[in-house]
Amino acid sequence: MDFRPTARAQELLERLDAFLTERLDPVEPAILRELDAQAPGAFAVPPAMRELQSAARDAGLWNLFLPEPADVPGVPETLAGPGLANAEYAILAERLGRSAIASEVCNCNAPDTGNMEVLLQFGTPEQQERWLAPLLRGEIRSAFCMTEPDVASSDATNMQATARIEGDEVVLDGEKWWSTGVGHPDCEVLIFMGLTDPDAHRYGQHSMVLVPRDAPGVTVERLLPTMGFLDAPGGHGRVRFDGVRVPVDHVIGTPGGAFGIAQARLGPGRVHHCMRLIGLAELALELACRRATTRVAFGKPLANLGGNRERIADARMKIDQARLLVLHAAWLLDTEGLAGALGAVSQIKVVVPNMAQEVIDMAIQLHGGAGLSDETPLAGAWTMARALRLADGPDEVHRGVIARLELAAYKAQAAA
Amino acid sequence: MDFRPTARAQELLERLDAFLTERLDPVEPAILRELDAQAPGAFAVPPAMRELQSAARDAGLWNLFLPEPADVPGVPETLAGPGLANAEYAILAERLGRSAIASEVCNCNAPDTGNMEVLLQFGTPEQQERWLAPLLRGEIRSAFCMTEPDVASSDATNMQATARIEGDEVVLDGEKWWSTGVGHPDCEVLIFMGLTDPDAHRYGQHSMVLVPRDAPGVTVERLLPTMGFLDAPGGHGRVRFDGVRVPVDHVIGTPGGAFGIAQARLGPGRVHHCMRLIGLAELALELACRRATTRVAFGKPLANLGGNRERIADARMKIDQARLLVLHAAWLLDTEGLAGALGAVSQIKVVVPNMAQEVIDMAIQLHGGAGLSDETPLAGAWTMARALRLADGPDEVHRGVIARLELAAYKAQAAA
Amino acid sequence: MDFRPTARAQELLERLDAFLTERLDPVEPAILRELDAQAPGAFAVPPAMRELQSAARDAGLWNLFLPEPADVPGVPETLAGPGLANAEYAILAERLGRSAIASEVCNCNAPDTGNMEVLLQFGTPEQQERWLAPLLRGEIRSAFCMTEPDVASSDATNMQATARIEGDEVVLDGEKWWSTGVGHPDCEVLIFMGLTDPDAHRYGQHSMVLVPRDAPGVTVERLLPTMGFLDAPGGHGRVRFDGVRVPVDHVIGTPGGAFGIAQARLGPGRVHHCMRLIGLAELALELACRRATTRVAFGKPLANLGGNRERIADARMKIDQARLLVLHAAWLLDTEGLAGALGAVSQIKVVVPNMAQEVIDMAIQLHGGAGLSDETPLAGAWTMARALRLADGPDEVHRGVIARLELAAYKAQAAA
Amino acid sequence: MDFRPTARAQELLERLDAFLTERLDPVEPAILRELDAQAPGAFAVPPAMRELQSAARDAGLWNLFLPEPADVPGVPETLAGPGLANAEYAILAERLGRSAIASEVCNCNAPDTGNMEVLLQFGTPEQQERWLAPLLRGEIRSAFCMTEPDVASSDATNMQATARIEGDEVVLDGEKWWSTGVGHPDCEVLIFMGLTDPDAHRYGQHSMVLVPRDAPGVTVERLLPTMGFLDAPGGHGRVRFDGVRVPVDHVIGTPGGAFGIAQARLGPGRVHHCMRLIGLAELALELACRRATTRVAFGKPLANLGGNRERIADARMKIDQARLLVLHAAWLLDTEGLAGALGAVSQIKVVVPNMAQEVIDMAIQLHGGAGLSDETPLAGAWTMARALRLADGPDEVHRGVIARLELAAYKAQAAA
Repeated sequence: MDFRPTARAQELLERLDAFLTERLDPVEPAILRELDAQAPGAFAVPPAMRELQSAARDAGLWNLFLPEPADVPGVPETLAGPGLANAEYAILAERLGRSAIASEVCNCNAPDTGNMEVLLQFGTPEQQERWLAPLLRGEIRSAFCMTEPDVASSDATNMQATARIEGDEVVLDGEKWWSTGVGHPDCEVLIFMGLTDPDAHRYGQHSMVLVPRDAPGVTVERLLPTMGFLDAPGGHGRVRFDGVRVPVDHVIGTPGGAFGIAQARLGPGRVHHCMRLIGLAELALELACRRATTRVAFGKPLANLGGNRERIADARMKIDQARLLVLHAAWLLDTEGLAGALGAVSQIKVVVPNMAQEVIDMAIQLHGGAGLSDETPLAGAWTMARALRLADGPDEVHRGVIARLELAAYKAQAAA
Repeated sequence: MDFRPTARAQELLERLDAFLTERLDPVEPAILRELDAQAPGAFAVPPAMRELQSAARDAGLWNLFLPEPADVPGVPETLAGPGLANAEYAILAERLGRSAIASEVCNCNAPDTGNMEVLLQFGTPEQQERWLAPLLRGEIRSAFCMTEPDVASSDATNMQATARIEGDEVVLDGEKWWSTGVGHPDCEVLIFMGLTDPDAHRYGQHSMVLVPRDAPGVTVERLLPTMGFLDAPGGHGRVRFDGVRVPVDHVIGTPGGAFGIAQARLGPGRVHHCMRLIGLAELALELACRRATTRVAFGKPLANLGGNRERIADARMKIDQARLLVLHAAWLLDTEGLAGALGAVSQIKVVVPNMAQEVIDMAIQLHGGAGLSDETPLAGAWTMARALRLADGPDEVHRGVIARLELAAYKAQAAA
Repeated sequence: MDFRPTARAQELLERLDAFLTERLDPVEPAILRELDAQAPGAFAVPPAMRELQSAARDAGLWNLFLPEPADVPGVPETLAGPGLANAEYAILAERLGRSAIASEVCNCNAPDTGNMEVLLQFGTPEQQERWLAPLLRGEIRSAFCMTEPDVASSDATNMQATARIEGDEVVLDGEKWWSTGVGHPDCEVLIFMGLTDPDAHRYGQHSMVLVPRDAPGVTVERLLPTMGFLDAPGGHGRVRFDGVRVPVDHVIGTPGGAFGIAQARLGPGRVHHCMRLIGLAELALELACRRATTRVAFGKPLANLGGNRERIADARMKIDQARLLVLHAAWLLDTEGLAGALGAVSQIKVVVPNMAQEVIDMAIQLHGGAGLSDETPLAGAWTMARALRLADGPDEVHRGVIARLELAAYKAQAAA
Repeated sequence: MDFRPTARAQELLERLDAFLTERLDPVEPAILRELDAQAPGAFAVPPAMRELQSAARDAGLWNLFLPEPADVPGVPETLAGPGLANAEYAILAERLGRSAIASEVCNCNAPDTGNMEVLLQFGTPEQQERWLAPLLRGEIRSAFCMTEPDVASSDATNMQATARIEGDEVVLDGEKWWSTGVGHPDCEVLIFMGLTDPDAHRYGQHSMVLVPRDAPGVTVERLLPTMGFLDAPGGHGRVRFDGVRVPVDHVIGTPGGAFGIAQARLGPGRVHHCMRLIGLAELALELACRRATTRVAFGKPLANLGGNRERIADARMKIDQARLLVLHAAWLLDTEGLAGALGAVSQIKVVVPNMAQEVIDMAIQLHGGAGLSDETPLAGAWTMARALRLADGPDEVHRGVIARLELAAYKAQAAA
């Protein structure tokens, strides 16, 4: 048993930390203010953010999330990523997660990460050349259109949108929402998921299709706030697809193959989300400690009042437990693959957002009104944690998976 | 022991409920959308809201919060309020609390309610004529400027703003924030609290002063978001007072008398907040039940999946307990006065916002993404509950009061 | 709305409190030690306890639980009970609940209370003369044999024991457990519940039958510990019924009528249990406060260390909420009857034992090892609270009832 | 990063598991019944247990806890232990912890483990020969007398017992309790801690002294129940020391050196306790799953009712997180030593007993009355977990340590 990170992960972490601390941290508040002031329909990437992206690209802090270097024409080796194991990337993702924009600065932000993985693993050379290469270079952005407003997305077989194949075209119809990134000014491609063959077996009915953002029939009806936040520059869109037609070669993998692709996409994606939330929770605890040691009430620093120390201790215990659980899940993903890590990934998907929500709520409370306003990153951080109790499968669905796996052995016995 | 409401409270509740159900409920979503779209600096009261106010005034559903009818020149008897006991008003406030705007429609919204009570109880005839009468008529709005960004407002003796008396003027300096209502287009008067005499005893140093909104030296620097919400049309301002001069007759009560006034103001105000939150929690539970019985996943309504029924049962138990605690506190306030209800009011101030936060969070979870967006009132409701864990005294301060009262008897024994 | 107790309840409370404080409190620790040292099979009522019973009888603090005075031959008016409403008895039961033996001292202990109510309401004159009169006089004790080891008693229709009618006899077979009181040296009668007619409708299949403790075929196999405690002098027995024959006139009410009787029995019984637990929680909080103000660590009384004050405040809030909920349920039972109080009774059955368990656990923690040992009443108190999360319906069943009632309206709408 | 156990730990685990599964599991219930029926003063080791000890000794499953093989005259190599790192022993301790007696069977039970470590590290050759060798061989048992009834043992500097040096004797006076193991029929030596030099610095005032169990002046006043359990055959004693005189060479280490020894003793001891509790929690979850899949109510297995699956999932997540935290703490102890693992050890000491208490409580609830009685090991398991929230430092003290370490950096900054 050995809890030390690998040497290369450690080295990258140190470089990443230095980069973010020196270059990003000083300018992040100004960038966030600029982003928060943007109205829907007028999202733009602040120039300072573009400069940081450029610097991250030059520093080789780029595409860190890719499990192996991307071997794609048009993507120079320096941008192909270091090819880290999940357990290695995990500690980098934690550092990225402390910031609301660092992931995008390093081309490691959802949903682009998942979309790039899908294209790398399942895309044709043509798809890779047209969409993946510019995504890997950070020149364009993408969105993922799966969730629908009218059916429970916790049960993906409910999906109502259709991707009918008519000759050499696919025709897309339906209403999607929480299409993250669709408001980004650089967004040029959407991955759409819809019903192709209702007569196929339950997990072989749906297809994933690449859709140019400007294809006729694609309408971003509006951008949805989360709590009150619009999350510029990407946003979360409600998107209509009205008879959108794309060539059949825009299907990813094979028609009917969407579920398998979605599963492959979601496992590592959930680990990334969770590691970033660990970083966010650490940031919240750090802010809580700073506040507790500097703010005075009733003649004492807050740290010496009531149960504040216990709450700080509880936060430390919750974070450390959650981090170990994520690292273990990442290690399982690396050593046992997706199937072997199924329960572990569902576990972190429940544990981490709930933990982060609680730790951040505690930090908000210590900050008083400042914690709820935009004077700290806490309100946004809380919203991110809360949203992840729903996104990529609500708590309840993941608890169901965990219980099913736990009970499986006993049921077999009971039945025997 | 008798848990029934009085006949007049019951009768008013029925009228209020009919009015809000018929007149307000159908138009509230549109009004809220209009308010949410307003940018800081451009807040306006939607015409539909002014019409509702007018109708409420005509229907005698006006100033319901006043503990006795307001006997003030310029305020006709029909607007003077029915003069309800706290325990009577409580059930009306619960109904008002289901809506984000009903309180303002019925002239029962904070901070105007507290400001009106202060002026009624402590104002001079001149102050009452100039400020109270138009407030009671609903023609103007007001703000309350107490909390400061740089000191812990949980310990009000920290206050740094000053209200120095110079001859027949009071000179106000300082930085306030979370001045609720200051962004309202009708806001014409602020109540400012500041240090007058640092040599007086601890609770006799501060004064409350009436300040015209347009007095020279008053600057609303910006409106603060809560989570991402600006809360138009009132908002919460960060307000600078730079050498603001008002005549000494603008002091409420006597110089140095602010603490006593603040205490008198806060007791009933906390009961009002709590009763409104009970209504909000009931609304959230109602939405949760509707969702649970109509939304289907995995072939079943959500109500029949996993622990959802238990969560609904838990919400019902938490709400019912909290409501009884508030009614009991209101009854104590009515029968024992502020001093006798001290612990009870602190109890509800802790219990109710936490309860509401939990119930609303549960309802959000059942709604999935819709619960976090603006497609339900839940995100705003959660924010209201969360903010009330800090406003009017954070949980920690109220827990301290409750424990102090609880331990008092034992300490005396231990010391004896 | 009026939260004051009635005058006669207040007067009885004062007399009861004086009696218990003066007579019982000083000797209770010695009595409990004597009881705890008793081995199964050798339970005896300590003489001091019999003296206290005698004194309570003389003082008219007897059968306080009866909703109306018992009009039964052989029971003098002085022992017939004051005939209190549930909301009146509730405050007396809270006082009784502070002590582990006060209820028995005042002839107000389960399961005799429920058994007496059943006999009063459903018994024939002969049954009343033979069993009820001596129970009301406190001369004998009884047990209630319903729960079975091999089937989920949360679903009473599972019951496997049988009460077959053969001619003018009823033949009882089956295995019961958690038959409280069956180890009492004065126990002379058991109420047995078993299946009579499997072809009747679901709630008309079972009968309740009076069984002399010494009837041939009745075997108390052993007394069950609850967390190590045997609960002398009554205990909880595992009881076999092997072809036990009693005359058919020993059936209570009509054959097949057991469910209706059980429901009538359980409503007030649950309110009694809950009120007693409120008293126990108050005792635990009192002990916690005494400890917190007298015990010193790190140079300070425990009350001034870490989150201890917050925990004391939380306990106060939980108790006060739970008490109001119980009083409200009792009042509903008095004003609306069993059906109208169904949800309210299920609510208190969940809320109160969980609350008491938490408050007592907190008090244990403040007492360190003493809290877990027999040097305080806390370990026994915790066990009582914990057991009541299972007895008379586990939390889960009551949550199910509450949710069903809550969702009923919405389902009707959803179905319409 | 690598979460796999070492090969030798894995091999030992398999042998240990086979031994306990084949030899101990079938007879444990009978042994426990025999132990539970023992009265204080009449504790005896059941013959079946002695046979198991013998078998474990022969199988080399002995003294597994020792961090290096014991090189002590009179202790053959086969009994000297395999010399495992803490992270290696941890997985064995988890297996031992599933059983209430396996630790004693394998000579790995507290307080003997800690006492042996103390003697190995700090004992003189004479002390080792006389006490350590027979302890290592499992021929005698020992007790540890530190906690006192009259002072908060959370703050060890409070200790009132004295160990005065008079010439070549040490004179011991004082009242100890929770002296675990003192009731064991094989107990022959106590380690006593008392005040020697009140003028020395705060952590240099106390001494540890070896005391023959039968030394004149040693009185076991009584054995304390935990909840209702006496924990035969070791028990927890209240012990008086009245002018007990032993030669000064019975002091362990140097006079005044007790605190350092106690600290060295407690670190690994806490890890052992926590790993055993992980095993106990796993057992409880296993029992819960068996029950949930076999017990039927309302026509369904309990697993399919209400929130039961969610609770099972929650238990799985809590256990897995807690286990990783303990393994990490053990690894830190191995790689960084006691000082480097200080916070980690305090973390597990809070997290694990609370986790186990919750998981076991859930399992009890699923078992109904059986869970509270002696028909399952759950009531005893819960009591063990609950006691460990107090033993070896209460939760509150460990939370204080964690918070102090967390805040240290910020305070330095705040002070600078």
